[in-house]
Amino acid sequence: MRKIPVGILGATGMVGQQYIQRLANHPWFQVSFLASSEMSAGKPYGDAVAGRWHMDMPIPDSLIHQPVHHIEALDIARQSCRFVFSAVSNEAAKIYEERYAAFGIPVISNASYHRLSSDVPMLIPEVNPEHVGIIPIQQKNRGWDRGFIVTKPNCSIQSYMIPLAPLHQLFGVKKLAVTTLQAVSGAGYPGISSLNMIDNVIPYISQEEEKSEREPLKIWGSVQEAEIVPVSNIAISAHCNRVPVLDGHLVCVSVQFEQKPSREEILRIWHSFEGFPQRLSLPSAPTHPILYLQDNDRPQPRLDRHQGNGMSVSVGRLRECPLFDYRFVALSHNTIRGAAGGGILNAEFLMCQGYLGKSC
Amino acid sequence: MRKIPVGILGATGMVGQQYIQRLANHPWFQVSFLASSEMSAGKPYGDAVAGRWHMDMPIPDSLIHQPVHHIEALDIARQSCRFVFSAVSNEAAKIYEERYAAFGIPVISNASYHRLSSDVPMLIPEVNPEHVGIIPIQQKNRGWDRGFIVTKPNCSIQSYMIPLAPLHQLFGVKKLAVTTLQAVSGAGYPGISSLNMIDNVIPYISQEEEKSEREPLKIWGSVQEAEIVPVSNIAISAHCNRVPVLDGHLVCVSVQFEQKPSREEILRIWHSFEGFPQRLSLPSAPTHPILYLQDNDRPQPRLDRHQGNGMSVSVGRLRECPLFDYRFVALSHNTIRGAAGGGILNAEFLMCQGYLGKSC
Amino acid sequence: MRKIPVGILGATGMVGQQYIQRLANHPWFQVSFLASSEMSAGKPYGDAVAGRWHMDMPIPDSLIHQPVHHIEALDIARQSCRFVFSAVSNEAAKIYEERYAAFGIPVISNASYHRLSSDVPMLIPEVNPEHVGIIPIQQKNRGWDRGFIVTKPNCSIQSYMIPLAPLHQLFGVKKLAVTTLQAVSGAGYPGISSLNMIDNVIPYISQEEEKSEREPLKIWGSVQEAEIVPVSNIAISAHCNRVPVLDGHLVCVSVQFEQKPSREEILRIWHSFEGFPQRLSLPSAPTHPILYLQDNDRPQPRLDRHQGNGMSVSVGRLRECPLFDYRFVALSHNTIRGAAGGGILNAEFLMCQGYLGKSC
Amino acid sequence: MRKIPVGILGATGMVGQQYIQRLANHPWFQVSFLASSEMSAGKPYGDAVAGRWHMDMPIPDSLIHQPVHHIEALDIARQSCRFVFSAVSNEAAKIYEERYAAFGIPVISNASYHRLSSDVPMLIPEVNPEHVGIIPIQQKNRGWDRGFIVTKPNCSIQSYMIPLAPLHQLFGVKKLAVTTLQAVSGAGYPGISSLNMIDNVIPYISQEEEKSEREPLKIWGSVQEAEIVPVSNIAISAHCNRVPVLDGHLVCVSVQFEQKPSREEILRIWHSFEGFPQRLSLPSAPTHPILYLQDNDRPQPRLDRHQGNGMSVSVGRLRECPLFDYRFVALSHNTIRGAAGGGILNAEFLMCQGYLGKSC
Repeated sequence: MRKIPVGILGATGMVGQQYIQRLANHPWFQVSFLASSEMSAGKPYGDAVAGRWHMDMPIPDSLIHQPVHHIEALDIARQSCRFVFSAVSNEAAKIYEERYAAFGIPVISNASYHRLSSDVPMLIPEVNPEHVGIIPIQQKNRGWDRGFIVTKPNCSIQSYMIPLAPLHQLFGVKKLAVTTLQAVSGAGYPGISSLNMIDNVIPYISQEEEKSEREPLKIWGSVQEAEIVPVSNIAISAHCNRVPVLDGHLVCVSVQFEQKPSREEILRIWHSFEGFPQRLSLPSAPTHPILYLQDNDRPQPRLDRHQGNGMSVSVGRLRECPLFDYRFVALSHNTIRGAAGGGILNAEFLMCQGYLGKSC
Repeated sequence: MRKIPVGILGATGMVGQQYIQRLANHPWFQVSFLASSEMSAGKPYGDAVAGRWHMDMPIPDSLIHQPVHHIEALDIARQSCRFVFSAVSNEAAKIYEERYAAFGIPVISNASYHRLSSDVPMLIPEVNPEHVGIIPIQQKNRGWDRGFIVTKPNCSIQSYMIPLAPLHQLFGVKKLAVTTLQAVSGAGYPGISSLNMIDNVIPYISQEEEKSEREPLKIWGSVQEAEIVPVSNIAISAHCNRVPVLDGHLVCVSVQFEQKPSREEILRIWHSFEGFPQRLSLPSAPTHPILYLQDNDRPQPRLDRHQGNGMSVSVGRLRECPLFDYRFVALSHNTIRGAAGGGILNAEFLMCQGYLGKSC
Repeated sequence: MRKIPVGILGATGMVGQQYIQRLANHPWFQVSFLASSEMSAGKPYGDAVAGRWHMDMPIPDSLIHQPVHHIEALDIARQSCRFVFSAVSNEAAKIYEERYAAFGIPVISNASYHRLSSDVPMLIPEVNPEHVGIIPIQQKNRGWDRGFIVTKPNCSIQSYMIPLAPLHQLFGVKKLAVTTLQAVSGAGYPGISSLNMIDNVIPYISQEEEKSEREPLKIWGSVQEAEIVPVSNIAISAHCNRVPVLDGHLVCVSVQFEQKPSREEILRIWHSFEGFPQRLSLPSAPTHPILYLQDNDRPQPRLDRHQGNGMSVSVGRLRECPLFDYRFVALSHNTIRGAAGGGILNAEFLMCQGYLGKSC
Repeated sequence: MRKIPVGILGATGMVGQQYIQRLANHPWFQVSFLASSEMSAGKPYGDAVAGRWHMDMPIPDSLIHQPVHHIEALDIARQSCRFVFSAVSNEAAKIYEERYAAFGIPVISNASYHRLSSDVPMLIPEVNPEHVGIIPIQQKNRGWDRGFIVTKPNCSIQSYMIPLAPLHQLFGVKKLAVTTLQAVSGAGYPGISSLNMIDNVIPYISQEEEKSEREPLKIWGSVQEAEIVPVSNIAISAHCNRVPVLDGHLVCVSVQFEQKPSREEILRIWHSFEGFPQRLSLPSAPTHPILYLQDNDRPQPRLDRHQGNGMSVSVGRLRECPLFDYRFVALSHNTIRGAAGGGILNAEFLMCQGYLGKSC
């Protein structure tokens, strides 16, 4: 089987580098187009990231000499790849994502710019796979042919949206209170100064609480005629904190349901949960999307962020709550499940659903 | 004015050392009796803590050669000091605190053993000063003459009990959800291994959530006849986490009142709040027991834990809550306000109220 | 090919756990005997390490129910395994390693107790493979039949002994000054308190400087008649520091040779260096035992400790020295190359040399 | 006594803020002129540093509304203050320090630009007070009247230059090898990314080793006719590392003397050492410029950086060296003794020597 050529917009940044690392040995996809909106455009990739390559593995040999195109080189993009992963800033997403889609190139985006557009899915394939049904409507709305845009949610919310997904379906989430302890890699590089993170935590992340309270409503919403209509009867409160951890967003969750399940029911549901990615055996799908840990003091970022190759959500400490129904602790790897890994899973899922050409 | 001689039970441990540091230049009290339940008993203090003195300042010269008595030396205690601060373990508190009180020596305790006894006050002088009214009843109940026991609450709850105190009085706290990010010094020395705290957080502290949900009910309770009766109509939920911070417990608080005040009312009340310690100008009382910080990203442990000489609670980010009425972030120094500093303030307050002999 | 059954003494401790992790999929060896000198003896392994399993991977299924024997069960050891890895404390090494060897069971040890015995090799197979020649003499001296003891050096010195090995052979090391920045995992678990390692370094590690100045002399020594005679004409000075890093000992090295090579010669030698483990393609041998990094700011513990599956030494910043000939920075993974990985490489090498029965 | 009005160039940066903090209650000096080369010029100081004030104490009330002038406002400077502390970048130092001096305003600088100019002293008053003798020559050389420039050395070298000063005088330093473990505050704000400093050290600081090997030669040099002539017979080697510590540069030192003293002599000399600042009782002079700590594991950055109000150098672990004569560990506070505190001590000393107008 020939691999499908894919592009990366924003290939030189942190998330772009993560895409390159995660795609290095991907069974379906092969990176064939690199683009950047920076000065680095024009250089070979190795030169463009010299001194700021932050991944564990070295730059893949096949990409060191590959040129970084300017993000405006849409012609080259269309000739070189079937779709692109977008790892650009919000400002660049605003300008370029629609241009790519209009030019016939599907965009699997990590940026937040289009997340709340009513005809753009914000996709977690284990949670709201049916939202891809909006894609033909999006294309029709906007007069696009082959191209479209799919986004993924903010990195911190997959920690609890995935464990809540099967519970919401059966028992209906009514109230949700979350307090996050988020890793520094979520702020990019250089991101947070070491002077702020040694012997300290910061109880504030710009715009994070707003996103955490808004995005779940759309994810739990439904495709109605020409748009994704958010749910309106769920109340969410988020406190977001930055802690001196490299990777892994940990969240303390309290939740109330329409109908309160028993603790055993929840554990049974989590244990047996499989979403589309698992049923389709997608290459990036973890066997256990939700991994319940028995020990009292788990999950912990350093010990559990790599579960399921960074794609599982680790959950622990499920217990009754004096204010709501239940409380638990959840953790996911913010730069894998919450960024490039999640984007690649979205592409794999869209591939299988036939949205990216020849199906798998 | 001659200083009042005081003793320290558990003088060689971390909290004992903090008492020694905080009392080094105290205007009213002078350390004249040191006791320990360990092998160190019998040695001069300097030898007893050799290799495990963890304070910033050196051991006060006046104490280096002072003998550490065995905690059973009650006779010496009674001759040497007017009352004792108890910084012993719970096991030792169970055995010795009542024996000291029965022997006529008041005990100002940091241990949790007697916190929930219905005739023992769990005192924060800014919050529940009227609970000292139980002391004569405690003495009568137990047939004690001069001695009695006063405790203080667990170190993490002063972060929010103090800012909530004036609000509770006026508007009635109804529901309270807290998530704590607690410093490693709360676990004593050596406490948490560095292998658990580099690039990590631990979402669990043994017994901490139970204490956090139980103790406020007694603090907000009232002296009724022969006992302190906890409130029963307030629901509290606590998530407790350990983070890689040396000192300072930070708490994300969500609260619902019987009557919802305006944001401006709350800020005004906090700004002007004074408790008994402030009105009495007690030596350890901070001018501003509640310090509201305007910046979005405050309070932060490293920047704000020393406010008010470690005795102020720093508060920030007051905002409306989608689930309850308000949310805010609060911080207090766990080994000062939450331990020795809080114990000393209790003693100062009891002094002024006449419970420790000649009034101030 | 049937795997060779091996035992682990001290299987429940940190180094024992590392052996279990590293041996989980070993192509030659299979863990078939677990022993401990602790109370845990008698329990299944899973129970014996409950709450203190610190490895990234879960306990291998095949070992969870395997019993932990008391270290005195030599009969069972002899029936169950061909040789043992010793990961016990020095005190236990003193008592048991000779008893095992005398009982016919070869001991590949991580403990320091026998390191300086003149008839016991302290082996790094890339550096002093010829020292295994002392083994028959050791057996004869002590009246042992099949059994013998082989040790490995202290974890911090492989960082520089390996890069210096080929240089010493050609140019003769004359003076060596090292300053180490050592990871907390080197102190075991719980080891260093987090209160000592947040916002701090400790410029002292008990006995570490002595070992660092003594052990290289033996490693560079030669087998002469009945003993390994250390070199006497090399002067070494070590400053040892503990830093807040989880794994990876970094060392700043200054060195003077009998004959000063050129910088290019050194780089060429490092680049092409292969020891016995590489030539024999031993399973744990890294392709590049010495990996020179071009960037000015490398090696760094977090980025480079996993090079060569934790078995390569990363080197950087080779430059002239105003006091000696050259300076460089070196890094090795202290719990892999410096502990279990190094021990396993020793066993693989001894296997191939015929000291552990049927050769490879 | 009226306080002397002083200015701060680069008042909004990190070092500028440290000057403001350290001068807040200075007995001799009062800040009366604030300048910046940034956009912030023109704003009141409180606005100019909004969101980037990093000191422990709040901005002094007296400065919140004081205007920040553009650094080109030399007229205002001359009217407002008697001399200036320069905390500007090297680029700004190159342009402005000579202009200020030429305009009659003495410049006490923290920048490195003029450190190696042969007619500019690089002053540590305990070490090379006699170098101020070059000032009249500097003024004559350059045709300046009242103005002149005095610099201070790089922040890391005071850790060992001060303890070596009295030894050099008596026994002659011949060879010096240092390995530094430097705090992140040395890189300014935001400086080092938290992604580089959690679970990591960096064995490289740009230009730091060059400065560490060059500056001591000038400090130990002598005023000969029209210039300060560096010593030429001392060899120095420096390895410089960045570690995850907030403040405090720790250095492992090995030293060889012309004449080897005994360990007791060294300890005696350190114990009784007093420099000019001590003899003159300058306000910022620590009582003990060199503080020898007996414990094996000291000095440690977090425990010892505040010794002597951040102005003492803490020393420990003096022991013989197999390569040179002695080894020891030294620590100084890089943003106090190594920056603003050191600059203020320089000004106090120059004041007393009559170089800044009316003597003290």
